[in-house]
Amino acid sequence: MNKNTICAISTPAGQGGIAVIRISGEDVFNICDKIFIPSKRDKKLSDQQPYTICFGRIYKNNEILDEVLISVFRNPHSFTGEDTVEITCHGSLYIQQEILKLLLENGCSLALPGEFTQRAFLNGKMDLSQAEAVADLIASSSAASHRLAMSQMRGGFSKELQLLRSQLLDFVSLIELELDFGEEDVEFADRTQLLALSENIRKIINRLVQSFVLGNAIKNGIPVAIVGETNAGKSTLLNHLLNEEKAIVSEIHGTTRDVIEDVVNITGISFRFIDTAGIRETGDVIETMGIERTFQKIEQASIVIWMIDATQFNEKTEELADIIISKTDNKQLIIVFNKIDKISLEEQTILEEEFLPHIPAKRIYLSAKYKKNTDILERALLDAANLPDFNENDVIVTNMRHYEALSKAFDAVERVDNGLRQGISGDFISQDIRECMHYLGEITGDISMDEVLGNIFKNFCIGK
Amino acid sequence: MNKNTICAISTPAGQGGIAVIRISGEDVFNICDKIFIPSKRDKKLSDQQPYTICFGRIYKNNEILDEVLISVFRNPHSFTGEDTVEITCHGSLYIQQEILKLLLENGCSLALPGEFTQRAFLNGKMDLSQAEAVADLIASSSAASHRLAMSQMRGGFSKELQLLRSQLLDFVSLIELELDFGEEDVEFADRTQLLALSENIRKIINRLVQSFVLGNAIKNGIPVAIVGETNAGKSTLLNHLLNEEKAIVSEIHGTTRDVIEDVVNITGISFRFIDTAGIRETGDVIETMGIERTFQKIEQASIVIWMIDATQFNEKTEELADIIISKTDNKQLIIVFNKIDKISLEEQTILEEEFLPHIPAKRIYLSAKYKKNTDILERALLDAANLPDFNENDVIVTNMRHYEALSKAFDAVERVDNGLRQGISGDFISQDIRECMHYLGEITGDISMDEVLGNIFKNFCIGK
Repeated sequence: MNKNTICAISTPAGQGGIAVIRISGEDVFNICDKIFIPSKRDKKLSDQQPYTICFGRIYKNNEILDEVLISVFRNPHSFTGEDTVEITCHGSLYIQQEILKLLLENGCSLALPGEFTQRAFLNGKMDLSQAEAVADLIASSSAASHRLAMSQMRGGFSKELQLLRSQLLDFVSLIELELDFGEEDVEFADRTQLLALSENIRKIINRLVQSFVLGNAIKNGIPVAIVGETNAGKSTLLNHLLNEEKAIVSEIHGTTRDVIEDVVNITGISFRFIDTAGIRETGDVIETMGIERTFQKIEQASIVIWMIDATQFNEKTEELADIIISKTDNKQLIIVFNKIDKISLEEQTILEEEFLPHIPAKRIYLSAKYKKNTDILERALLDAANLPDFNENDVIVTNMRHYEALSKAFDAVERVDNGLRQGISGDFISQDIRECMHYLGEITGDISMDEVLGNIFKNFCIGK
Repeated sequence: MNKNTICAISTPAGQGGIAVIRISGEDVFNICDKIFIPSKRDKKLSDQQPYTICFGRIYKNNEILDEVLISVFRNPHSFTGEDTVEITCHGSLYIQQEILKLLLENGCSLALPGEFTQRAFLNGKMDLSQAEAVADLIASSSAASHRLAMSQMRGGFSKELQLLRSQLLDFVSLIELELDFGEEDVEFADRTQLLALSENIRKIINRLVQSFVLGNAIKNGIPVAIVGETNAGKSTLLNHLLNEEKAIVSEIHGTTRDVIEDVVNITGISFRFIDTAGIRETGDVIETMGIERTFQKIEQASIVIWMIDATQFNEKTEELADIIISKTDNKQLIIVFNKIDKISLEEQTILEEEFLPHIPAKRIYLSAKYKKNTDILERALLDAANLPDFNENDVIVTNMRHYEALSKAFDAVERVDNGLRQGISGDFISQDIRECMHYLGEITGDISMDEVLGNIFKNFCIGK
């Protein structure tokens, strides 16, 4: 257990009306008594009751640094489970920094990112998946991702895992009891019953593993790259989808030199759009860099929109098709013919019939400028995302670490299932069940290694 | 008195570990009871004792929006003097916005900038100059400006004004008593004594008026414009003074197209440096705009540094001298010859002797690149600032509104002084004393108009 007392500014960085500095650890009250004088001078901060607020002044070199409110929490009834105070000070950068400096001078250490939450975990206030949900909650920017993080923080996922582990424990107990009496060739557990049990566990873990596709889409969005020749209307389309002018739209070829990313919500699902520099042969150095990045971005995307200027369709487009198809063979490709407002229906029909009819990509004919058929594109994106169906109350996995642990747990339970069917020795089956339990335990932190903890909490914000 | 209940995010804008939403007004507890359920369900928030913290959940459409801590303050023992609560929630933008929306749906209004502090003033928790100091405190970025704002917020200035007003009141009482008995031709007040009194008041007000030069320099910094031909080394000098690369230094003429502002602290005094586009004849449109802004910036500066490339000195420089001198006749001009590392001592001597010897400007010969003689420039800046001496405990006026009121009060007290010396009727003297008191009262808000209040609080940040 950490003995040192940590402090950090817990409110967002910057200047505001007020700011909150959080301090947690054994020495909280000793340290605060050195720098803080309550307005009722007969009572020190260390004499205050828990869950109360104390008004007073923080002094530095006998000068008033600020008038503050201090909230008092006492071990174990605090977020970290330790003695904790929260100083609410005026929100100038100067005051925030000076109070922090004063605390460091008087024996505090600066908290590492996520260190308060890490202490909450180490002191048994929450399990590891709940601790991770705290960071997810703070990073949530949509109703859907907020709901998932809140449910995980409140222990929804942990309960599901607990249930699984207790089922696995029953399972392994039966098998191991049998092994103890192995000499006597007794079968305590009915094989059919055991198979039903393993089948049930396999189903639950599989559902959790599958939910990650949806969870990851909700949490991080589905990456979509828009590629195509310069001036095909990529920025116009993106702007329309984003409903704001994030990319510079210009008549000049090659305007969008920076790769701009933004997120569009389509019926609750986030699509992380990647606008790219146009694909064009050019002597311009920056342009060439832009094109390289375009192909890098395609790598990261799961859906690729190839945008073609319907009025500029020519042999070069057909040449480009080979390149783009070679770069997208494991992705969902949507071909968008833009500027259909400028061509006749006859020309469009020729396009539909003659442009590489063998490519198995969805084709959409639209006008980004006049917002015609952009709704068809949105529906095509939802189809291409190909997300599994889940009920509102189902536990959804959003965390890559959990997904990996669950995948390993699933492999183990598959081995159990196969073992039972093939009549393999209880020794091996027991080992696989225990491995499955181990991986589930990694998620909640029942089994954990320091390096795993370090990796998890370093991505937190400071002050939480 | 405002009856509606206001709310705002009081912590800095953005995402953080936690955020604080402040709510103040008559309906605070009714509104919170609708959206918040304490974890000890037998007790509503409205039943909580003042100065306590209550843990619980905020619900939206029967779903948990967040787990929060709510601090409870009760009229009149709160910042505003009204019933107030502060919700400490998780610091995601989503949660902050959703809680705010929920409060608005349940009867709160969004607080205007400074509205909490305005209520504190209107409810008699502080006078107007103290309220203004709250905003200054939050904006303070140096030890000196912080100390001034804190002293003003703690009532140092108010006490000084109170003392002045009580002296003036004694004064005017004496005069008016005399007037009441005017028929009897009695002199209650010894004229010599009255003169000593008015002289003393005049001195105190004068000291306060004079302190504004220093107070304004501490609060806003002294504006310094650096002008000169392109490539004279303005950006290099500024970077050296700022100790960081804020301006793009480049060998290409006319690089610094944007006017960059930054603040340098020289022995506690802030100099607000204004880097400008170089003065150069050019067909480039952006360059011309830069030059126009250069001359606009000279208008705002109280010190102008004209930087000359000592190696490029020619007739054009002499021509430019006329323009620059015409634009700086009411300012402190410092002529800096840069790049002296590249010229011989003989060439420097010629410059010193022959370049417009009649100009009464300070001349400094330095090398910005090799940081030679830049300390001489710093001392020249402090000299040019020409700040008055004050003791550490003296009240320093930092606010333009206060300065203007004090200047008017000073004019009035001067009239009193003259009137006494010239034996003018007590009627007029009494009127001037009352005018002086009026202006002092405007500062503390004893006399105030709605429009003045509106102007003051609109510059506050939201949530304070």
